[in-house]
Amino acid sequence: MSLDNTWYTELAPGATTAFSLKIKKKVFDQTSDFQRVEVYETENFGKLMTIDGLTMVSTRDNYLYHEMITHPALFTHPNPRRVLIIGGGDCGTLKEVLKHPSVEHVDMIEIDEVVTRAAEIHFPELCESNNDSRANIMFIDGIKWVHDAADETYDLIIVDSTDPVGPAEGLFSKPFFEQAHRCLKANGIIVQQSESPLLHMDIIKGMYSAIGGAGFVDLATIFFPQPIYPSGWWSATMGCKDSTLTTFRENDAQNKPFATRYYNAAVHRAALTAPEFFYKEIYGE
Amino acid sequence: MSLDNTWYTELAPGATTAFSLKIKKKVFDQTSDFQRVEVYETENFGKLMTIDGLTMVSTRDNYLYHEMITHPALFTHPNPRRVLIIGGGDCGTLKEVLKHPSVEHVDMIEIDEVVTRAAEIHFPELCESNNDSRANIMFIDGIKWVHDAADETYDLIIVDSTDPVGPAEGLFSKPFFEQAHRCLKANGIIVQQSESPLLHMDIIKGMYSAIGGAGFVDLATIFFPQPIYPSGWWSATMGCKDSTLTTFRENDAQNKPFATRYYNAAVHRAALTAPEFFYKEIYGE
Repeated sequence: MSLDNTWYTELAPGATTAFSLKIKKKVFDQTSDFQRVEVYETENFGKLMTIDGLTMVSTRDNYLYHEMITHPALFTHPNPRRVLIIGGGDCGTLKEVLKHPSVEHVDMIEIDEVVTRAAEIHFPELCESNNDSRANIMFIDGIKWVHDAADETYDLIIVDSTDPVGPAEGLFSKPFFEQAHRCLKANGIIVQQSESPLLHMDIIKGMYSAIGGAGFVDLATIFFPQPIYPSGWWSATMGCKDSTLTTFRENDAQNKPFATRYYNAAVHRAALTAPEFFYKEIYGE
Repeated sequence: MSLDNTWYTELAPGATTAFSLKIKKKVFDQTSDFQRVEVYETENFGKLMTIDGLTMVSTRDNYLYHEMITHPALFTHPNPRRVLIIGGGDCGTLKEVLKHPSVEHVDMIEIDEVVTRAAEIHFPELCESNNDSRANIMFIDGIKWVHDAADETYDLIIVDSTDPVGPAEGLFSKPFFEQAHRCLKANGIIVQQSESPLLHMDIIKGMYSAIGGAGFVDLATIFFPQPIYPSGWWSATMGCKDSTLTTFRENDAQNKPFATRYYNAAVHRAALTAPEFFYKEIYGE
């Protein structure tokens, strides 16, 4: 059965799977210096933002991604105070980070201001902490920002980027991870969205090689569902500068002073569990 | 972007999300007494079987579902010897069950012989244990089979059905679970596919009520990815007659005498972990 023009369909170049959402209308369409940003009002997923035709964030299911790219890393670090977000233009990651009372300062470095302006209009619930006095939002190149940052500036770097093509390509490379390693403090952690384990093991293996090669001493991947992304199952990969990623502040996670919809301390432990195929691909056992 | 006729699109009645696979050609199309069974050769997911237009099984990703609807329940039961499969016409569940050395006999009761005949041709790897001397495959009504079965016949009942519409509707009702409870032995377990926790919490809550109301003393849900099903995230729900479902034969699972691609002992523990929203919906806390 084919879909008429009341549907949005994500169709990546060369893709052999596609995801569609029934839409009411398009409510935003602007081509920035970097990419085309569109927002649709959908029948059942709230608003949907796409960039160059690819799904980025929906009202209904963004909590999965935003909770899982933030809270596991924040509860793994012993005392995260200074945080850098690269990308994250919809501001949902910033909002989750600022829920942690230990956080004193967050730099959010998004290359494309149009993404954030669209989010402010169409995803206001994700932008409600943008005026927090701890938040510094700037619309400049994140790779250059990390390159220019002083040594040992941050406790946590969150790379909340698009796929490794276009502006985000350099964020998946060893030179970037080396710079990130340099500007992390002792016990610092980097966490980055790492695509679908069911479709993109080549990208994840490349990230393991690049992050490990940049000097991070332990790596771990977090697995979680995300319906609007290809395969419906997504991941984030962490690297830490000094410690390990297998333990975390469980007591703090169990007594967190904010509500979540997906994350909890038990989910944190479970999300670190690698399926058999992943274990064999990464560790060759 | 719309998809041309080189794509198969799953579009359930009233659906507001859709999943598509790029296809090479249709290789099977037969309308049985119960439903229309079609098989496509896809670009990247191997073969795809659909029933009444809905995705059932693909070569590429069926291991997720088949491993997770079988091994957790089989490794939870202390000594599963007699197993009943209701549905499961593609025979992938039967194949996984027969990998357990303790299993002495399996009745597979599939209502539609056309499904199994299509699987034998197009999914031969799922049917490779069909001639195992422990397997008894019959093409009759599973609800009637359970109704007619003697008390305490089985250690494990696996309900590997389509969605709760059409022939499978009765499999989600309390009278069915009462009959299943009656024909399970002491320590018996039932496990049933239970749709997507991200889209179908109403169905899952109904199942909890029906299974619990039928006398099962502990219930637990297993979560796993399944790209070709709506939302990409699926579940199976277990009920047990006497014991609990939170412990399992971990040592046996770690030393299982067969290979898996997704399941392992750590995945078993992790898959039992309920996300925050699920916990609140089911337990109201």
